[in-house]
Amino acid sequence: MKEIVVSGIRSTGNLHLGNYYGALRNFVKMQEESKYNSYFFIADLHALTTHPDPKTLHENVRNILCEYLAAGLDPEKSTLFVQSDVPEISEMYLLMNMHVGIGELMRTASFKDKARKQLGIKTNNDEDIEHEIIGGNSNKRVNAGLLTYPTLMAVDILIQHANYVPVGKDQEQHLELTRRFARRFNSTYGVEYFTEPQNFNFGSDPIKVPGLDGSGKMGKSEGNCVYLVDDEKTLRKKIMRAVTDEGPQVPNSPKAEPVENLFTLLKIVSAPDTVAYFEEKYNTCEIRYGDLKKQLAEDILKVTLPIRERFLEIQNDEAYLARVVKMGAEKARESASKTLREVREIMGFKPF
Amino acid sequence: MKEIVVSGIRSTGNLHLGNYYGALRNFVKMQEESKYNSYFFIADLHALTTHPDPKTLHENVRNILCEYLAAGLDPEKSTLFVQSDVPEISEMYLLMNMHVGIGELMRTASFKDKARKQLGIKTNNDEDIEHEIIGGNSNKRVNAGLLTYPTLMAVDILIQHANYVPVGKDQEQHLELTRRFARRFNSTYGVEYFTEPQNFNFGSDPIKVPGLDGSGKMGKSEGNCVYLVDDEKTLRKKIMRAVTDEGPQVPNSPKAEPVENLFTLLKIVSAPDTVAYFEEKYNTCEIRYGDLKKQLAEDILKVTLPIRERFLEIQNDEAYLARVVKMGAEKARESASKTLREVREIMGFKPF
Repeated sequence: MKEIVVSGIRSTGNLHLGNYYGALRNFVKMQEESKYNSYFFIADLHALTTHPDPKTLHENVRNILCEYLAAGLDPEKSTLFVQSDVPEISEMYLLMNMHVGIGELMRTASFKDKARKQLGIKTNNDEDIEHEIIGGNSNKRVNAGLLTYPTLMAVDILIQHANYVPVGKDQEQHLELTRRFARRFNSTYGVEYFTEPQNFNFGSDPIKVPGLDGSGKMGKSEGNCVYLVDDEKTLRKKIMRAVTDEGPQVPNSPKAEPVENLFTLLKIVSAPDTVAYFEEKYNTCEIRYGDLKKQLAEDILKVTLPIRERFLEIQNDEAYLARVVKMGAEKARESASKTLREVREIMGFKPF
Repeated sequence: MKEIVVSGIRSTGNLHLGNYYGALRNFVKMQEESKYNSYFFIADLHALTTHPDPKTLHENVRNILCEYLAAGLDPEKSTLFVQSDVPEISEMYLLMNMHVGIGELMRTASFKDKARKQLGIKTNNDEDIEHEIIGGNSNKRVNAGLLTYPTLMAVDILIQHANYVPVGKDQEQHLELTRRFARRFNSTYGVEYFTEPQNFNFGSDPIKVPGLDGSGKMGKSEGNCVYLVDDEKTLRKKIMRAVTDEGPQVPNSPKAEPVENLFTLLKIVSAPDTVAYFEEKYNTCEIRYGDLKKQLAEDILKVTLPIRERFLEIQNDEAYLARVVKMGAEKARESASKTLREVREIMGFKPF
């Protein structure tokens, strides 16, 4: 029996270097290993919980699909699908909502965080957030889709009977809820049906890609992030503008966070001797950040430019994209519909 | 253009005289009028919000289907379907949840009422209920399905583009929410897509059928209710045991509630001169409640026994039931899938 791996990414914008080293590159490795049966999906339904915009919905899905393919995901080896192409997920989401408590959803850290942002609340006080959500100004709505995000995520995972789900720190609580829902379903109906999915770390600590703005990890905020599909000029400009400091004044100084971040990036993309070269320059106070940045840009481009080229090709191949999406939906629906049929049976639905 | 009418009933037990006079009899009238295009469904998904029980789920659906048919609903004239046979409803439920606020769901009277019952809370204080739901004991769970009941009900209605929905007092708030969700969807996407459904009263005030236990309306509680499929003996016994009083001591006395209820039942099922006869007996203090009850049982049996007989026949006709359910699902899915396709298009989903 192959181990089933499921992972999805919300279609809320282009993929960046953090997505690549944190996830995508590992997906590509995984699909080459025969012990895994991998499902990678574009989570357009999840995207709706915070970004419902008809103008960009399809474009975002399309971009991520092309980026997945350009980065090396192979629709013949993995099941590559769009979440909303699998109606069984929505059906099971409704059924699962009958077994999920409002309280446990509301207590989820990421829900509270997103709700606070949507409501424009500054405080971290739980009662204030709850009060605003329930009793507050209905012009500032926190929608039921956002609340039930963990239900939907659990369904994504359980409907494929995943053994492993590679998730970062911010999603660990959701995966824990998924395990709880799996146990609860089993005990409610007296069955041993769902297995509890485990986090998956690709055999080593996950790579955290820092941002270019001096602090934190790479995300989608302005000036912080390098996209896989950035053109050469844009990418070089972004790197050259990355935050640094005045340079070391004393040999072997500790590095300030922005500089440490650039070195971290260098370690991720460059050869060890390149890293050693700049480390020495730093320690002897001879470093010129401009040189480091040029080298960094060069080495990032070695990774991203081939992806960008494939992306541009694939993007125009309508027939290919249609074929990929169709094939993925068929494969994902085959397993999903089997699970849904069995879940319905366990819950007592019977055909006439 | 025909007016579209949608009505559903939760499959949580057999239908009683209250369901018949309050709803079912009117459904039968409606299907005979050519100006209506009627959809009647068995709300098995709604039943899951409070009664998830694999042992009874299918049996309950089956019973209501047979009762619908036995009472005169004609699958050739109306669209008669099982809610869970239409996956488009679940799909649209998920999409609609993205546009529905947690607060407006939590403030719904029927949610608060059911949540209070599930949590075993005695108080009517909103904050106590909210506190228990969100922060409280997770062994007493109020599930997300119950919270999103109004979303699902709105979808049942809007997915068929209903013009009219016959609802009682307890469902008026849900219908108002449905209208609000319709307006919100239209304004969010800048479309005039959904029409706002109106309540439908069959041209007269709805008939309220009182219970047999002396107070309130007929419901499913013990000793209060006559089922359409009660056999003759059971039914007679229930009526004979109905609560009364010691009888009038003074001519033209006002009637106590339990007695008033029996007269109300008599007015619903018996001929006017029968009612007049017992009214006079009451006013002259000559009434014998036993006689009244015998007559009442007689006249109820005239209505229910033919239904019971057809029910027993239909119940064993597996092939017929399978055909009815299949035909209903096909008709309901035809319109539902058109709506879902259009809703997805409006929200920005595009095929590849």
